[in-house]
Amino acid sequence: MLDKSTVIGFTLGFSLIFLAIITQGSVLVFASFAAILIVGGGIIAATMINYSFENIKTSFAAILSMIGAKDVDLRTDMELLSMFARRVRSDGVLVLDSDIQHIEDPYLKNGLQLLVDGFKKESLDSILRDEIKSRERQIDTSINVMYSMADYAPAFGMIGTVIGMVLMLQNISDPESLGAGLSVALITTLYGTILANMFFGPLAGKLEYLSELDLNRKEMFRTGINSILEGENPRIMEKKMLIHVDPKSRAEYIKYHEGIRISKERDERFYKLWIEQQNKEWDDLKRVLETG
Amino acid sequence: MLDKSTVIGFTLGFSLIFLAIITQGSVLVFASFAAILIVGGGIIAATMINYSFENIKTSFAAILSMIGAKDVDLRTDMELLSMFARRVRSDGVLVLDSDIQHIEDPYLKNGLQLLVDGFKKESLDSILRDEIKSRERQIDTSINVMYSMADYAPAFGMIGTVIGMVLMLQNISDPESLGAGLSVALITTLYGTILANMFFGPLAGKLEYLSELDLNRKEMFRTGINSILEGENPRIMEKKMLIHVDPKSRAEYIKYHEGIRISKERDERFYKLWIEQQNKEWDDLKRVLETG
Amino acid sequence: MLDKSTVIGFTLGFSLIFLAIITQGSVLVFASFAAILIVGGGIIAATMINYSFENIKTSFAAILSMIGAKDVDLRTDMELLSMFARRVRSDGVLVLDSDIQHIEDPYLKNGLQLLVDGFKKESLDSILRDEIKSRERQIDTSINVMYSMADYAPAFGMIGTVIGMVLMLQNISDPESLGAGLSVALITTLYGTILANMFFGPLAGKLEYLSELDLNRKEMFRTGINSILEGENPRIMEKKMLIHVDPKSRAEYIKYHEGIRISKERDERFYKLWIEQQNKEWDDLKRVLETG
Amino acid sequence: MLDKSTVIGFTLGFSLIFLAIITQGSVLVFASFAAILIVGGGIIAATMINYSFENIKTSFAAILSMIGAKDVDLRTDMELLSMFARRVRSDGVLVLDSDIQHIEDPYLKNGLQLLVDGFKKESLDSILRDEIKSRERQIDTSINVMYSMADYAPAFGMIGTVIGMVLMLQNISDPESLGAGLSVALITTLYGTILANMFFGPLAGKLEYLSELDLNRKEMFRTGINSILEGENPRIMEKKMLIHVDPKSRAEYIKYHEGIRISKERDERFYKLWIEQQNKEWDDLKRVLETG
Amino acid sequence: MLDKSTVIGFTLGFSLIFLAIITQGSVLVFASFAAILIVGGGIIAATMINYSFENIKTSFAAILSMIGAKDVDLRTDMELLSMFARRVRSDGVLVLDSDIQHIEDPYLKNGLQLLVDGFKKESLDSILRDEIKSRERQIDTSINVMYSMADYAPAFGMIGTVIGMVLMLQNISDPESLGAGLSVALITTLYGTILANMFFGPLAGKLEYLSELDLNRKEMFRTGINSILEGENPRIMEKKMLIHVDPKSRAEYIKYHEGIRISKERDERFYKLWIEQQNKEWDDLKRVLETG
Repeated sequence: MLDKSTVIGFTLGFSLIFLAIITQGSVLVFASFAAILIVGGGIIAATMINYSFENIKTSFAAILSMIGAKDVDLRTDMELLSMFARRVRSDGVLVLDSDIQHIEDPYLKNGLQLLVDGFKKESLDSILRDEIKSRERQIDTSINVMYSMADYAPAFGMIGTVIGMVLMLQNISDPESLGAGLSVALITTLYGTILANMFFGPLAGKLEYLSELDLNRKEMFRTGINSILEGENPRIMEKKMLIHVDPKSRAEYIKYHEGIRISKERDERFYKLWIEQQNKEWDDLKRVLETG
Repeated sequence: MLDKSTVIGFTLGFSLIFLAIITQGSVLVFASFAAILIVGGGIIAATMINYSFENIKTSFAAILSMIGAKDVDLRTDMELLSMFARRVRSDGVLVLDSDIQHIEDPYLKNGLQLLVDGFKKESLDSILRDEIKSRERQIDTSINVMYSMADYAPAFGMIGTVIGMVLMLQNISDPESLGAGLSVALITTLYGTILANMFFGPLAGKLEYLSELDLNRKEMFRTGINSILEGENPRIMEKKMLIHVDPKSRAEYIKYHEGIRISKERDERFYKLWIEQQNKEWDDLKRVLETG
Repeated sequence: MLDKSTVIGFTLGFSLIFLAIITQGSVLVFASFAAILIVGGGIIAATMINYSFENIKTSFAAILSMIGAKDVDLRTDMELLSMFARRVRSDGVLVLDSDIQHIEDPYLKNGLQLLVDGFKKESLDSILRDEIKSRERQIDTSINVMYSMADYAPAFGMIGTVIGMVLMLQNISDPESLGAGLSVALITTLYGTILANMFFGPLAGKLEYLSELDLNRKEMFRTGINSILEGENPRIMEKKMLIHVDPKSRAEYIKYHEGIRISKERDERFYKLWIEQQNKEWDDLKRVLETG
Repeated sequence: MLDKSTVIGFTLGFSLIFLAIITQGSVLVFASFAAILIVGGGIIAATMINYSFENIKTSFAAILSMIGAKDVDLRTDMELLSMFARRVRSDGVLVLDSDIQHIEDPYLKNGLQLLVDGFKKESLDSILRDEIKSRERQIDTSINVMYSMADYAPAFGMIGTVIGMVLMLQNISDPESLGAGLSVALITTLYGTILANMFFGPLAGKLEYLSELDLNRKEMFRTGINSILEGENPRIMEKKMLIHVDPKSRAEYIKYHEGIRISKERDERFYKLWIEQQNKEWDDLKRVLETG
Repeated sequence: MLDKSTVIGFTLGFSLIFLAIITQGSVLVFASFAAILIVGGGIIAATMINYSFENIKTSFAAILSMIGAKDVDLRTDMELLSMFARRVRSDGVLVLDSDIQHIEDPYLKNGLQLLVDGFKKESLDSILRDEIKSRERQIDTSINVMYSMADYAPAFGMIGTVIGMVLMLQNISDPESLGAGLSVALITTLYGTILANMFFGPLAGKLEYLSELDLNRKEMFRTGINSILEGENPRIMEKKMLIHVDPKSRAEYIKYHEGIRISKERDERFYKLWIEQQNKEWDDLKRVLETG
């Protein structure tokens, strides 16, 4: 499912600019192949020098994958980890061995694998921690690539405009051609500013925002895995994991769990559901779990 | 109660701009639906790409709730926590069990609940700490949304102006129409600058400022809860909590407490008052407590 | 005593701008009540939304109090703390009880009071540390208020100019009125730039600079109080405190103390002097102490 | 092998600017020896005052050496360190003594030398850590030199333009010469902007990016050397080192190592290969190792 | 010896600007006493408000002293500290007592004095650490003063230009005088930009760069003094100190010391040399030490 607000944002933004243009004049005035070439090409060229073409691709791939990612409700993850914790408390850590293959998220999968493999608390936690750091470093590069493009965009817009102005001022014959020349010269500035503020800038921001959510989820997994390893009481584990959940969902989760009793049957039902069909919405999950 | 300075600030600022306009010309010159569309719409579009529509709503809701919040005097909170500390020292921690439901602030409520539930010092403090961090992270997103809008505002103002200038320069016939065209083109710049410096920027700053006050209050609660858990002398607890109070209120508090004696009767009076009617102003509270 | 360099700076700066104007034209051209209203009012309005009117007052009060503060020589403080240390080493910590009321600085006063009250090293140091942090947080708000005003100043200058330009371009009749109109429109930009660079900006910087000196002094007090509590050798205590003194004063202090011997009589003379008359200049102090 | 994306970026960028110019006018208009002198000379002069000529040379040398460096696949390094670990586990640390001379990378070489010399864990790790910090500090100077040049470039472009404008406005006779004069004055602005955004800026960014990769590789070496010193299980060592590898290569490495068995013969084959011919591509290495 | 690159940079930069002017017009056009007054005076005034006149003097003194400082080769310092370490290992720490008076650098002198005075490891190291921090704080003020001046320079350039433009636009009679007026108004902008980018900015950068070198040297001294105190093997001490040396000098130092043997006679020769004549260049030192 595509990230709706990104799509709506792009549609709204470009429609408005388009509207602003056609109500006052012709779109043709603003369509300039030369301007596209100098602004678009300049941004790509500078970014290639700054990073590498590989990085630009990775950056856009990161945005596409994040925008297209299924929406994850942390509460579903919490239910899952709680169930795992209860399973481990009753049957030992090796019971997870067969479950791991059903897990989609590579971070959680790897973490539980290490748990089953019998890693000690300290090694395990330092590996989990470093993996988050490493992931952060990699996504940070993609974010920086995007922000660099947002910085280069108005600069190449200005370069195009200065080139246009130098040429125009060189051969002034009549003041009217001067206006038209300046008009053309300003188009690259317009392109640069729009690209920076409607494309690269907001996308870099989105990538940064989504990566924070992603790292937060990983932190929650780390909390849970550590709790399972230490055999902590599932209630305390939940308290600790809830800190990573946003306030509204947290309140709902707490209220819901105050109302129900975790029975062995419920856990079995949940386990079967989970094996069959992953990543159910939490609201569906709740309904199915209670009604049986 | 609405935050007075925000309301006065808005009234003052927009009145001045309005005044500056009507004394020199007609307001009609500045009212442009197209300009509203391109600047306002552009800001919303870019922010939707950058975050999500949900975030924009949360950000404004955060401002509204903070601006409309009742003014909290940290000294009232200190009196309350001191009383709790004395109650726990004489009757044990379970005495708080019935008090908790009367507490309004969710952070304090949750912290004291954990205390009653018998959490150990280390777990308790790490949960309290993480909750502050988690709250900070959530409000930081709202602050960043607001600051992003303040950044996008002048950019879309400039985009509107450049579009206007390109169109105007394209069809110069007489120099007079040129002036009028530029005049219209500049209106989006005006809108963008006003929105950034009279609306989004100051509101982002306000949100940041109020959230600091809020986090400071939570830190004071954390200090108090830890003190109660450790059974620290209430006098030392007060010294530690006072650090979160601003210097003027602190001086008043110290002076007041040098003058009075905390008797059992006073505490009982206070307890009754508190159950009946929450969040009294400190100045009222003092008067009522002493006069009985 | 007023901070001389602030006064000289203001006098010099505004005289120069005044001079630049009257040698080239008339001051009347630059005196615009409307411009004062839009720039000054706009700054105040935006800052009120961003913070509160209370904060603006506190910020200016902080500047006034700091600028008007008596110049403090850290060496006088060092002599005092050294004497206290020697008194405590010979007569025990309770000897300070009567001295505390003669101390002016609230931080030192409170710290020594805690010492006399028998606080343990760890609690004492954490309170002293937190108080510095709390003071830093409060003064930081004032500094940020001032910097915000410096940021808003050119923005409202620009808003005024854009309003003026829109109105002027609207009704062009002859090119000469155009010049005059632009001239008037530019005055708000001038006001905004001058306010940012001759008033709010440098004052924010001054506040930041003076608060650093103040925090440094508090850190020196903390070092000294900790030393007294641990009963450290006064010579080591001096070495540690000297780190907070600027290099020139430090060299002088060291040289002076290499030349003199700290006798009991000298200490008594100093104690008497200190009770009678606080905050003597170090150079005077030295002279009086040696000549008896 | 030259860094391809840098070369392509430069070629693309300058071709586009060249194209933009020749399609609209003559290149001769933009070729100005005076503009080169004032912008290029000004940048060098300011950077020499700011740093030293030595630093400018080091900065460019750093870029050249990094851009020209052979591409290093961290997986080849991992295979090597794993083999070393197995050698040390079976034959003791002194077995590395003869290997060290074959190592190219000075950091790894020095680290293993310290290992053989019998340094204790703590000293060894603190030396390895400090060396990374020291390397970081040195490369940071080069990066800052480059960023300073990117900052000075548009400033000297502007200085050139203002000088040109002052002179041009001084002797206005006819409006046409005014246009030509402004046209010439703008050329330094164009030079400054292009140098900042197509040369110094992206190169500074590249240096920063490549130095991060380099430090990451050193961190991986440090992890490996510490693991060998502690005699850790090579599998755990691999887990830890893999954190420094980018996700795609990591996945490939893990998959490959799940499919093969590390036999004594394979290690001997690898050792022989490594002595004979360093820095093979990982893909080649894999093929050769398996096929024998 | 003056810092050569600073001198060459200034000469080159100002010559280029001078050249750019005289090839296109007359220097007289650019010589404006009023412009010097408003830009130079404004910068000084604002900086005096922001800091104090004392700070401005200290800042320039810091630059002069650093630029004029004798070039220090860290390798000479390393040879010296190694010799001290060997002396202490054979004859005890008191042997340094007579050497200290020959040491020029106050930080090293003080550190060794504390060593001889028998300070314990922890106190000694914390004093050495704090002194570096204190030095850093003091030089940071000077750096900030310089950067503030670089920030104020273009602001006062702009203030001058806006004043000029307001006056010029006020009394337009003929378009030619308009050009001349604008030309004069732009001169303050030129002054401000040149001062920021050819004087204050690069000097602030230089001060920052040189202070980093200075702090690095102090850190090396701290490492050495700690090593001597702990009686560490001089070879390990060298390894640790070398981390502060730049890579090229480090390589040379290592290579040189692999080739020679440290004999008692060499040390005595070195000691005699050092007493007689301080701060010899390392290259000279090497030659003299080996040839005897």
